[in-house]
Amino acid sequence: MIGYPNQKSNMHSHQVRDNYMGRGMSLEDDLNKSNEYYLETQRALIHKKPIPVQIVKVDYPHRSAARITEAYYKTPSTTDYNGIYRGKAIDFEAKETKSKTSFPLKNIHPHQIKHLERVLYHGGIGFVIIRFSSFDETYLVDAAYMIDRYQNSDTKSIPYAQIKANASIIRRGFTPRLCYLDNVDELYFKEETCK
Amino acid sequence: MIGYPNQKSNMHSHQVRDNYMGRGMSLEDDLNKSNEYYLETQRALIHKKPIPVQIVKVDYPHRSAARITEAYYKTPSTTDYNGIYRGKAIDFEAKETKSKTSFPLKNIHPHQIKHLERVLYHGGIGFVIIRFSSFDETYLVDAAYMIDRYQNSDTKSIPYAQIKANASIIRRGFTPRLCYLDNVDELYFKEETCK
Repeated sequence: MIGYPNQKSNMHSHQVRDNYMGRGMSLEDDLNKSNEYYLETQRALIHKKPIPVQIVKVDYPHRSAARITEAYYKTPSTTDYNGIYRGKAIDFEAKETKSKTSFPLKNIHPHQIKHLERVLYHGGIGFVIIRFSSFDETYLVDAAYMIDRYQNSDTKSIPYAQIKANASIIRRGFTPRLCYLDNVDELYFKEETCK
Repeated sequence: MIGYPNQKSNMHSHQVRDNYMGRGMSLEDDLNKSNEYYLETQRALIHKKPIPVQIVKVDYPHRSAARITEAYYKTPSTTDYNGIYRGKAIDFEAKETKSKTSFPLKNIHPHQIKHLERVLYHGGIGFVIIRFSSFDETYLVDAAYMIDRYQNSDTKSIPYAQIKANASIIRRGFTPRLCYLDNVDELYFKEETCK
């Protein structure tokens, strides 16, 4: 499982961004930029959590920053994003799919679903942001609906049409790039805005 | 700044736990165990965030897990712990000091103070947990007090006596090891418990 620390295996090595391979980069980028904007305009305090990494070995070169020379990705035990909005705890996961027909449920880890259940139990606002990159459409899917589909669906995916019918489409903008807090306002703060 | 990737510098390399060197290990351990207990008993949903790491190089050995071979610690832009308790967003930092006379303010990054200010602005509960390891005493220090001391204090530390007078001491137990949510109840939910 664990390789030889001093083995030179540059043939299989890659320069990477601070981003786990295979995850949707551009949705993440859009969300980070939007969260930055929301932070600066004091509308919300939402951050992406760092990628969980198991650190095995660290070098301390003279007069240089500590260098991690052996580490492994860990399975995340929570969702990627959380923070505070309008006094409420907010917690969500973001996923991108190239499929034109459905969202594959294997994109979400079982313990992330468990985590979203806990978010709702403790009184937070929970959801999943799903992008169908082929259509360039991004949806906010309420956690309760996602949990139900995950646990009670016979199939291994949620059809695109079902998401379209049950989720809320997120408007794109320049700043923020994804106006997802407008969807949050409409879905979770309706009573207050209608007063 | 950045070392040579293939340089064998094992003289300065160490096996590490998943824990940034120099940070108090045992306070972190106590908090993680306590949070686990609070999670299992459904009292609260509080997690430690992963250590922020800048990943530079990853190897993909055959039939093995991806191995990160070059990465660096990043300065955290938020506090270490957050979650949901009694419907409220909760956010805190934890620090340990060996000093018997004061808590050195350099233990907290300026952007962590900024982050705690934002937590309060957006309606969350924020604090710092400080352990004086020489006395084996752990205190919950309200964020507003900490921010004020950080910004308005002439000295570079908060005297132990001042913390003792202005913070709330956390009771130790077996499970949880640190009953810090009892302090949170008393400090932030007083009105409700007195009804």
